[in-house]
Amino acid sequence: MKAVVYKGNGQIVLEERPMPALRDEKDAIVQVTLTTICSSDIHIKHGTVPKAVPGVILGHEFVGRVVATGSAVKKVKPGDRVAVNVETFCGECFFCRRGYVNNCTDEHGGWALGCRIDGGQAEYARIPFADNGLTVIPDHVTDEQALFNGDILSTGYWAAKIGEIRPADTVAVIGAGPTGLCTMMCARLYTPARIIAIDTDGYRLALAKEKGLADITLVPGRDDPEQVIREVTDGRGADTVFEVAGGKDTFQTAWKIARPNAVAVIVAMYEEPQVLPLPDMYGKNLVFKTGGVDGSFCQEIMDLTACGKLDSSFLITQRCGLDEIMDAYDVFENKKDHVIKYAVRP
Amino acid sequence: MKAVVYKGNGQIVLEERPMPALRDEKDAIVQVTLTTICSSDIHIKHGTVPKAVPGVILGHEFVGRVVATGSAVKKVKPGDRVAVNVETFCGECFFCRRGYVNNCTDEHGGWALGCRIDGGQAEYARIPFADNGLTVIPDHVTDEQALFNGDILSTGYWAAKIGEIRPADTVAVIGAGPTGLCTMMCARLYTPARIIAIDTDGYRLALAKEKGLADITLVPGRDDPEQVIREVTDGRGADTVFEVAGGKDTFQTAWKIARPNAVAVIVAMYEEPQVLPLPDMYGKNLVFKTGGVDGSFCQEIMDLTACGKLDSSFLITQRCGLDEIMDAYDVFENKKDHVIKYAVRP
Amino acid sequence: MKAVVYKGNGQIVLEERPMPALRDEKDAIVQVTLTTICSSDIHIKHGTVPKAVPGVILGHEFVGRVVATGSAVKKVKPGDRVAVNVETFCGECFFCRRGYVNNCTDEHGGWALGCRIDGGQAEYARIPFADNGLTVIPDHVTDEQALFNGDILSTGYWAAKIGEIRPADTVAVIGAGPTGLCTMMCARLYTPARIIAIDTDGYRLALAKEKGLADITLVPGRDDPEQVIREVTDGRGADTVFEVAGGKDTFQTAWKIARPNAVAVIVAMYEEPQVLPLPDMYGKNLVFKTGGVDGSFCQEIMDLTACGKLDSSFLITQRCGLDEIMDAYDVFENKKDHVIKYAVRP
Amino acid sequence: MKAVVYKGNGQIVLEERPMPALRDEKDAIVQVTLTTICSSDIHIKHGTVPKAVPGVILGHEFVGRVVATGSAVKKVKPGDRVAVNVETFCGECFFCRRGYVNNCTDEHGGWALGCRIDGGQAEYARIPFADNGLTVIPDHVTDEQALFNGDILSTGYWAAKIGEIRPADTVAVIGAGPTGLCTMMCARLYTPARIIAIDTDGYRLALAKEKGLADITLVPGRDDPEQVIREVTDGRGADTVFEVAGGKDTFQTAWKIARPNAVAVIVAMYEEPQVLPLPDMYGKNLVFKTGGVDGSFCQEIMDLTACGKLDSSFLITQRCGLDEIMDAYDVFENKKDHVIKYAVRP
Repeated sequence: MKAVVYKGNGQIVLEERPMPALRDEKDAIVQVTLTTICSSDIHIKHGTVPKAVPGVILGHEFVGRVVATGSAVKKVKPGDRVAVNVETFCGECFFCRRGYVNNCTDEHGGWALGCRIDGGQAEYARIPFADNGLTVIPDHVTDEQALFNGDILSTGYWAAKIGEIRPADTVAVIGAGPTGLCTMMCARLYTPARIIAIDTDGYRLALAKEKGLADITLVPGRDDPEQVIREVTDGRGADTVFEVAGGKDTFQTAWKIARPNAVAVIVAMYEEPQVLPLPDMYGKNLVFKTGGVDGSFCQEIMDLTACGKLDSSFLITQRCGLDEIMDAYDVFENKKDHVIKYAVRP
Repeated sequence: MKAVVYKGNGQIVLEERPMPALRDEKDAIVQVTLTTICSSDIHIKHGTVPKAVPGVILGHEFVGRVVATGSAVKKVKPGDRVAVNVETFCGECFFCRRGYVNNCTDEHGGWALGCRIDGGQAEYARIPFADNGLTVIPDHVTDEQALFNGDILSTGYWAAKIGEIRPADTVAVIGAGPTGLCTMMCARLYTPARIIAIDTDGYRLALAKEKGLADITLVPGRDDPEQVIREVTDGRGADTVFEVAGGKDTFQTAWKIARPNAVAVIVAMYEEPQVLPLPDMYGKNLVFKTGGVDGSFCQEIMDLTACGKLDSSFLITQRCGLDEIMDAYDVFENKKDHVIKYAVRP
Repeated sequence: MKAVVYKGNGQIVLEERPMPALRDEKDAIVQVTLTTICSSDIHIKHGTVPKAVPGVILGHEFVGRVVATGSAVKKVKPGDRVAVNVETFCGECFFCRRGYVNNCTDEHGGWALGCRIDGGQAEYARIPFADNGLTVIPDHVTDEQALFNGDILSTGYWAAKIGEIRPADTVAVIGAGPTGLCTMMCARLYTPARIIAIDTDGYRLALAKEKGLADITLVPGRDDPEQVIREVTDGRGADTVFEVAGGKDTFQTAWKIARPNAVAVIVAMYEEPQVLPLPDMYGKNLVFKTGGVDGSFCQEIMDLTACGKLDSSFLITQRCGLDEIMDAYDVFENKKDHVIKYAVRP
Repeated sequence: MKAVVYKGNGQIVLEERPMPALRDEKDAIVQVTLTTICSSDIHIKHGTVPKAVPGVILGHEFVGRVVATGSAVKKVKPGDRVAVNVETFCGECFFCRRGYVNNCTDEHGGWALGCRIDGGQAEYARIPFADNGLTVIPDHVTDEQALFNGDILSTGYWAAKIGEIRPADTVAVIGAGPTGLCTMMCARLYTPARIIAIDTDGYRLALAKEKGLADITLVPGRDDPEQVIREVTDGRGADTVFEVAGGKDTFQTAWKIARPNAVAVIVAMYEEPQVLPLPDMYGKNLVFKTGGVDGSFCQEIMDLTACGKLDSSFLITQRCGLDEIMDAYDVFENKKDHVIKYAVRP
């Protein structure tokens, strides 16, 4: 079968690879029907994800159809349409029992797919712990609606959930890229009074506004986020801030626009350490929640998609076949053509 | 009356000052019966507390007897023995209603006593919002038992409360000074399996162990906290970490000894910004709660003292009169004679 | 001025009463611009509210304009348009500090307006603790949009808040009267997958559906709520049940349609004790939250109204002047003309 | 082997039964080293537990040594000393994932041992889902210290956990029998200011006081619990009430001694429905949490036992061999000889 393979040294290629097979009684084999490229794939390509293994098939955000299951798999069966969870996890260890599946202590626990074990930019993929890692897609939900269920939508859902948003709050989201948009979508579930989106890309901000995700959009440089947010919050600052940009100054912006005792969720994957100016923020009593997704809620996300409360398919701005994926990588990495996300059909 | 006055430029003096008088209907005048020196007083002396006003009477940790009350004061009356809350707050603003009294938006809200308005290293003190700022001391509780109610014990109580400690957890406390010991005492209220105290001062660690506050004591350099904590937690790390030292490397120690998804409460007052190495901690999903006390729970703390569940009087290692307080400052600032806290009698 | 007065013995009359005056420095006088009738007024009329005092002016759900304030009132000033909170509370007692303002221990604490002290079915009303009891109405919010802010919308908001609804949950609301509709509106803020409304009144159910508040509507007798809810929840039952009907069998329905470990919020005011069949529900581990409003969140509710997330004005199906209020009582009590709520203009 | 068998019709006998064998890959076989009699066994004998199956071996509270494990068992291995969890559960269903293991939807989920499947008043027992149902006993913890880990201590732990106890609270426990004493022990973990124990049995109250579990003990009839509790709580009532007696009037006592907005945890197994007098408690806004254990925390309980924070071995007042268990049943059922719990050695 065809698959996108990470060769190390900044190189990825589309090449022929053998079909995957069941190795454990909890495995399933999924025929990939739609896959996509994530910014983490770009991080892997650039060598900034140390645990990524050269030779691995990339891809951790995809949907498909189950074609085979191990003897201990109960929840899914051949023929089921499924969304794949970026996290593989045992469900039984200390961390899994507390819902921190991202830190599952199994050797394949956490983000392994398309990083340490073969992923889904391919025609088929093997999914360990299939009962935990696959979510059945209801008939009336399309592949495009389910494509982001297990990765960027899970990230946005996890971030919103730990953001402690209460009805009528003011929420700020720094970064209006794919994950930022998903975060806004999920923050909406808790009905803040307003979401303020901050980005340097006017097109993405316009999209956030058009889709009803952001009420106020701000461009740093042109606008002064700290001042605008003070004005709309009676001088206080945002109740919750999501930092989904990972830019040069965005961490500093995050704590500055937060009100005292706010929660700042640091979702972005940073390539550099940040400065935490504790003397400047003394007495502000901020809470920082750092992280990198926790895929515990894929079923709830699917339920919300099924009942129409979440629809992330608008993120798909480009479509192509697996044969054309190397061009898609170029467009996605360089943010050409106002791309948000690709849908790639094997 | 005699009072310790901050003169600016690193200078404090004991001098004669006029008696305070009621200025607002919510004020009370308290005759100070026991007061103490806090490390924040040292920070003020050194000029590292920008909001401290030269000419102010120092002291924000003291007990006394009410001698006069404004017309709107209801909870306390002349004759009552009281502990003073380091925080003055209105009780009605956005932050007070949410229990974030440290960020009260009143002009005197937050830590004002002995910093922006005259405090309690004196014979008498004026207390604004007296109903919020004073806690009645039951007859059978001594002044020494109540002395730390409103400041370092409130800090420890607040820290423990937001630390999300569950029974059977492993808690690490970095710093076994007065506030660190109070934090251990309050963490005990949630019955962790063990408290691990980390400090460079063997005497303080021995005290923590002798008083039943720490189960394991570690000296960085001599011991390897990261390794020891891993060993006692099945390889995971501490469930909650309190950083109460504010030393050169202690912030880095804090996140390293924490297990994935742990809470790290940053209680210490830092004089330098810290580095938050987000790439190194990616996927560890840590929560950092930064702060500087929130004096919302003085009544609960007094109740716990009254029923014998908390007794901080052992922290008093030295006693003197107000006349001798300048010597006491020297001993306290330079940590002579194994001093933990002074009790100063005006 | 004209006012509706409870005379005892099931009798209420519209009569002339003296204008109210300030009595305490925390009072405000409000000129009533819009008022309404609540089912609690009917309970008072029928003598089933023991604490209601004969001679009291009825009315606890109204909006108006501040015409005078006591010297200690800070938040509101003459000229402000305000919504009145059904609860009067001191803000300082044990219960108020925990946010249980319904149980304020002040002699006027809790539901006093239009019950133990003169209320707002009149031209003017005196409001104790005005800073706690009045919420300023933004210019662009109409009186009709603000009318229910302090009573039935507060009830629905409180109920939804304690209902522990999570995104994608299934919520059942028994009773589609005014308070039931408010409960659905507020439950929506937490984005359940679906709200199932149960009532015997088809008109009210149709309204709930038309306004997008209910996804499924059931009529007991015609439908089998227990069975239908099982079917849509994979056999489990509702995650949260709100009992807002207070009918003969509705308490039993509430626990039967709940899934194991569900929360059942008992909002209705019952005139009879209920049977709690603990042997039948053994092992189901249900949580029952009983209550009667807690008006702590009037500002948040107004904020949500101001930003368009809540609009309860559709509940107003009838309008009249204060002169016609006795006819309105008849229509409302006997549920004539598909009445939901009256807007009465003094 | 010898085993206590429920014959139906109020009859139990000690008889010879075949040794159990592994049936599923997740099973383990445990050689019972210590077992006990629970009041639920008496309920089964009396026919008031409808799901109990005649012919079943009784016993759901025991410790032992693993002698065989199925191929999918990972956490325990032959030779391990283990405490058995009263609940068997799959760990994967909707309820298990939320921590409601008592409502596991597996056919053997919930309380099955010694009720629907053979239990542990025998020489050997088969444990389904062994990784979830067995907790390894550390070497320095004795069988007697571990005996109640999985049943009455789990009940007390679960009850205390959902009781929302905060430091300095006043807690009332109705019933000082074995489960009541366990509830007090676990409530202590949250450091209330005081625990008030209520029972008609002076001996049990004296034991509660002697073991430091109760601060105040009350005998209804002799004392007036409602009045005493008001006096020690400034007129308010208990912050949390645990009803562990299941007596004639104890449910009514429970809500009457609770303060407004309190939590009442209804732990007792009732044989009759109770009356919930909603009109009388209107506005008191009580929360009732009903239940029957949730064995999710056996590891934490064992950890607390291992570090000396919990020691329930004092509950063992009588000891005997399995041969003598029919006499033990008589003593236990009729509360002879001040029995609290038996330790029965097969």
